[in-house]
Amino acid sequence: MAGNSFGIHFKLTTFGESHGKAIGGIIEGCPAGLQINFEAVQEELNRRKPGQSAITTQRKEADEVQFLSGIFNGITTGASIGFSIKNTNAKSKDYTHLKNVYRPSHADFTYQKKYGIRDYKGGGRASARETACRVVAGAIAKQLIPQIRINAFVSSVGDVFIDKPYQALDFSKTETNEVRCPDEASANRMIRKIKEVKKEGNTIGGTITCVIQNVPVGLGEPVFDKLHAQLGKAMLSINAVKGFEYGSGFCGAKMKGSEHNDIFNEDGSTQTNLSGGIQGGISNGMDIYFRIAFKPVATLMQDQKSIDQTGKNVILQGKGRHDPCVVPRAVPIVEAMAALVLADFWLVNKCSKL
Amino acid sequence: MAGNSFGIHFKLTTFGESHGKAIGGIIEGCPAGLQINFEAVQEELNRRKPGQSAITTQRKEADEVQFLSGIFNGITTGASIGFSIKNTNAKSKDYTHLKNVYRPSHADFTYQKKYGIRDYKGGGRASARETACRVVAGAIAKQLIPQIRINAFVSSVGDVFIDKPYQALDFSKTETNEVRCPDEASANRMIRKIKEVKKEGNTIGGTITCVIQNVPVGLGEPVFDKLHAQLGKAMLSINAVKGFEYGSGFCGAKMKGSEHNDIFNEDGSTQTNLSGGIQGGISNGMDIYFRIAFKPVATLMQDQKSIDQTGKNVILQGKGRHDPCVVPRAVPIVEAMAALVLADFWLVNKCSKL
Amino acid sequence: MAGNSFGIHFKLTTFGESHGKAIGGIIEGCPAGLQINFEAVQEELNRRKPGQSAITTQRKEADEVQFLSGIFNGITTGASIGFSIKNTNAKSKDYTHLKNVYRPSHADFTYQKKYGIRDYKGGGRASARETACRVVAGAIAKQLIPQIRINAFVSSVGDVFIDKPYQALDFSKTETNEVRCPDEASANRMIRKIKEVKKEGNTIGGTITCVIQNVPVGLGEPVFDKLHAQLGKAMLSINAVKGFEYGSGFCGAKMKGSEHNDIFNEDGSTQTNLSGGIQGGISNGMDIYFRIAFKPVATLMQDQKSIDQTGKNVILQGKGRHDPCVVPRAVPIVEAMAALVLADFWLVNKCSKL
Amino acid sequence: MAGNSFGIHFKLTTFGESHGKAIGGIIEGCPAGLQINFEAVQEELNRRKPGQSAITTQRKEADEVQFLSGIFNGITTGASIGFSIKNTNAKSKDYTHLKNVYRPSHADFTYQKKYGIRDYKGGGRASARETACRVVAGAIAKQLIPQIRINAFVSSVGDVFIDKPYQALDFSKTETNEVRCPDEASANRMIRKIKEVKKEGNTIGGTITCVIQNVPVGLGEPVFDKLHAQLGKAMLSINAVKGFEYGSGFCGAKMKGSEHNDIFNEDGSTQTNLSGGIQGGISNGMDIYFRIAFKPVATLMQDQKSIDQTGKNVILQGKGRHDPCVVPRAVPIVEAMAALVLADFWLVNKCSKL
Repeated sequence: MAGNSFGIHFKLTTFGESHGKAIGGIIEGCPAGLQINFEAVQEELNRRKPGQSAITTQRKEADEVQFLSGIFNGITTGASIGFSIKNTNAKSKDYTHLKNVYRPSHADFTYQKKYGIRDYKGGGRASARETACRVVAGAIAKQLIPQIRINAFVSSVGDVFIDKPYQALDFSKTETNEVRCPDEASANRMIRKIKEVKKEGNTIGGTITCVIQNVPVGLGEPVFDKLHAQLGKAMLSINAVKGFEYGSGFCGAKMKGSEHNDIFNEDGSTQTNLSGGIQGGISNGMDIYFRIAFKPVATLMQDQKSIDQTGKNVILQGKGRHDPCVVPRAVPIVEAMAALVLADFWLVNKCSKL
Repeated sequence: MAGNSFGIHFKLTTFGESHGKAIGGIIEGCPAGLQINFEAVQEELNRRKPGQSAITTQRKEADEVQFLSGIFNGITTGASIGFSIKNTNAKSKDYTHLKNVYRPSHADFTYQKKYGIRDYKGGGRASARETACRVVAGAIAKQLIPQIRINAFVSSVGDVFIDKPYQALDFSKTETNEVRCPDEASANRMIRKIKEVKKEGNTIGGTITCVIQNVPVGLGEPVFDKLHAQLGKAMLSINAVKGFEYGSGFCGAKMKGSEHNDIFNEDGSTQTNLSGGIQGGISNGMDIYFRIAFKPVATLMQDQKSIDQTGKNVILQGKGRHDPCVVPRAVPIVEAMAALVLADFWLVNKCSKL
Repeated sequence: MAGNSFGIHFKLTTFGESHGKAIGGIIEGCPAGLQINFEAVQEELNRRKPGQSAITTQRKEADEVQFLSGIFNGITTGASIGFSIKNTNAKSKDYTHLKNVYRPSHADFTYQKKYGIRDYKGGGRASARETACRVVAGAIAKQLIPQIRINAFVSSVGDVFIDKPYQALDFSKTETNEVRCPDEASANRMIRKIKEVKKEGNTIGGTITCVIQNVPVGLGEPVFDKLHAQLGKAMLSINAVKGFEYGSGFCGAKMKGSEHNDIFNEDGSTQTNLSGGIQGGISNGMDIYFRIAFKPVATLMQDQKSIDQTGKNVILQGKGRHDPCVVPRAVPIVEAMAALVLADFWLVNKCSKL
Repeated sequence: MAGNSFGIHFKLTTFGESHGKAIGGIIEGCPAGLQINFEAVQEELNRRKPGQSAITTQRKEADEVQFLSGIFNGITTGASIGFSIKNTNAKSKDYTHLKNVYRPSHADFTYQKKYGIRDYKGGGRASARETACRVVAGAIAKQLIPQIRINAFVSSVGDVFIDKPYQALDFSKTETNEVRCPDEASANRMIRKIKEVKKEGNTIGGTITCVIQNVPVGLGEPVFDKLHAQLGKAMLSINAVKGFEYGSGFCGAKMKGSEHNDIFNEDGSTQTNLSGGIQGGISNGMDIYFRIAFKPVATLMQDQKSIDQTGKNVILQGKGRHDPCVVPRAVPIVEAMAALVLADFWLVNKCSKL
């Protein structure tokens, strides 16, 4: 039951394995009357798709989304929106050597134990390929709330960090380089770092920062569905994510109240924004910003010790086509999940008061 | 609609404001046949309640839970379990000066804008008082999964950190000091730190670490309801939380794959545990551990500039009875939320395979 | 998990057994800013409560609802609304003779088998006492949609039927007699019938008809959550209900399309209304009307053969205080459930189009 | 949001319009390890599909289901099961004359008003074509609970009724005639009746009876999710359904308690079964049986008066390919919805007790 749906009113349910016939989903709760920009949806998918550059996997997928329902003459009808993306380049033979083997820090072992059966081809349902469906739905969500601006970017790769606050960055530059870092100098250092680990047959972690601007006051719900709690779940549900912090984040835990409180201006805006645009779980109109940690990709182009399903030791050889660093391709996924959360709470909020 | 419920099968729905007649909740999905240890429930509540020590608020609440249904002769019947806790010591007059004023970094402004009306007494629904209901439900959840051991503790206050891995700690010492830190030397430094900021009329942030042991393999669901995503949401929904990381967390983002991968032993356990007991969103039987950042309490015993509902500048005087540091009292809340997540996924998992 | 909640956005979750300390519930999704008429809520409860007249049970319950949260100075705040009703007159000793016995056509056997334990006092969770919580929430729902008029009434008792279409009835007369039938002559015959079976120590079934007027066009959702499907579920969930039909109902199954189609007037209204105000699952602005069948109460004041938990034959003696006919007291319950459905879809519909 | 999903744990979400590219759905909550009989799924679809016989529409659809995920080497993996059915024979030009016109007793008017836009081709989302997805999911559900036998059949067409109790029928004969009535004599009369109204360019209503046997004790949930309430919603959500009754149904409303109570045998079975296999909302192990009323199809092969979107009078000419009577093709849909409900509660019940 659990696990394949996200959202309260604007809701995405997905299906699909890495090497099955297709992946896809159903979007519910999109109001009727929205003119869909199909090119914009495809562009988001293109940002995520493999084979984009020298620092991403060389695997190629057309990743063309086909909308099957819910849109009539380019306009949403209020009906559920079905869509699918064919798996065109699934080289299943790449994976037969993994049939009985558990790869370290992958989901092979846990899926086998939980379900008693495992689609071992390309990670099956556990593959990050499913995130393409999130990007499709997120692209629709973005179009539903065009006034809200969502910008994610790579803020670190390994120990290479952007050393500027986000306010000093020009988000229009994020797409100008392969690593999706809006700061050119940092981007170059990050790209060097990724190429370096790639050459070793290794992989590297990184962080993405996301800034959401022009958010209306009042989004998010009390107690369990606080805006940042839902954003956190959204981000933590993305493959390879190990941490989430918003506003002052872990630094805030070291601060005193007198340093941390955001004093109001007369118009209700605040002089500082350590709150990260959210107070009591509800947006206050200031910028929402958060940071997400991604672990290094678990598939290495190196030999690794592991075990097979009987517990016997095996040597895993590095094979297949994989990303040396996941964060550049994860940027559109982060934006998509953020858009899903914001669009959802924007709709839910329509019933907050008489 | 949203916001008052948590859980998929084992589900808690709550109500109640800080200064209303009572707070309470309904627990659904608890299987029939569970013998309830009522004293254990009350003990968990006592750990959370105000007025425990010199470093917590001096406000007193009896915080006695009354179970109203779903339990017959001490045993759960499968029916929904209703419970309530009276608000016995709500000094509502303490808050009349806040009727028209927005406190910095509180939910006053956002609630007023979202709902057009605000229960200004003690923070109303946004008060951390609601977490008492989480503790009640979490105490039941703990009894449902007695084999799973959940231990949270204060791992830092401001810049005072425990400088040991959790494996070096004796969790049975957590309750031996006021700050709920199992390392005595660190505890003493933390208590000093809290007393220091309290004397200034200030507050201080901190972190809590939670370790969950003896977890069966297979808990958590794919894609959107990954075990760590649900744990993250659970923790981020607690008042004042700004960040969540599990396993290697933000440090993992700096690492290489060859350092980060957890190599299997022949029995399926792993030699390291940077994964934090979860792979592909599903528990692998190793220890689950995570860290949560809490910001400093926003209510200061100092004068602060703010605005009223008309946008006029006002000076807020420090009043009321508040905690200088929230983490000691948050320890049982963290455990309760963790127990809710684990018990829920334990039940959901009963239908994973034929 | 399942079973204790009703509604999508405007959602009621309940708890409570017939002879526990209290019953109650939590209403989620009521928009902020609604001025609550508490007397109107209590009046609805009074319509349902036992001991009203010579043809209902002589058992007395004060049935006073206490609101615990979500309402501030008489106005809803958007927070969840908790409420409880004490069980003041639970003569538990009345039921000790039923501890090991299964009453025919009651839920004793099925609850015992399902849960392995049973609160045998007064039917426990299976008692119709829980419907008092529905009436409370329904009374709030009615106040949320004051323009929509919901009128239920007893349309038959045994073989005594009102022989007029609902358009010929004056709903203001429903409350003028004990049986809640707006047609005086039929009411008298029904009352006679009930007194007759009561004298025999017997019980009798009946039907309730409900008419909902001034409904805006557009309520209800496609496919699975059609307005009449949700109304049907709402009604079938009431104790003792065996059937539901709306519009032409079972008679419609005998008709031809040329007789059954409702031809449009130029303003979009229809000349006939065999559709019962709903087309394609969505309200069309015409009157919604439906009919509900209630079986006779299973508790008789006669001796009955039955079995105990070991399968041994026992003779059940007629004891306790029970209704000879359930329909008069069920009228406010039917209205409450209808109000919950309508208010819910009215809120859900706010997001149907841009 | 609402409307496209059905089920609690075993959950179906669907998409698709009559004349779009495809219809399809996602099944969640099917346990891993179920060997799928694909032919059996296709057979169920074939029972529902148009063009089967002289008494159904002559429109043809291949109605071949393609499974896209969640099944690996013929066995379910626990992942969500995506599937789609292409719309191969959608003659969209048939519908251009309906672009601005509201057909009587169809969903044209209500969809246009609710959404401000309408897919007028073949009824769009409101078309009964979506029920093919229910049949697919229901066929999987049937395979999950093979021990439970679900048999639906046509029990009346217009005023032609089977005049025998279901116990006197041989369900293996249901598929031996075009009308799906297991009683040959009645079947012949029904077929004559349908041919008669077809010749007139008219349509006719009917009823379907469904009998569910070998149900374990304990399925269904208390209060709002009673087994019959969920069955009722399931059936009422099928296009053209106007009424639902189970067990004694509307007849029960005329009976006395002494006639209606089902007296226990020593083994817990009952001597009569007016309860219809459900007591207190939970299955008691006896046969579950219910009856559903279908109105006559609204599309006639006769001229009808109607209005266009501006309110002007128009004459609608009978066109297109439609069923003169919906019940024969609805039999597999009823069984599918019943299977969804039963399989769902069977899974939910796994957590009822420790």
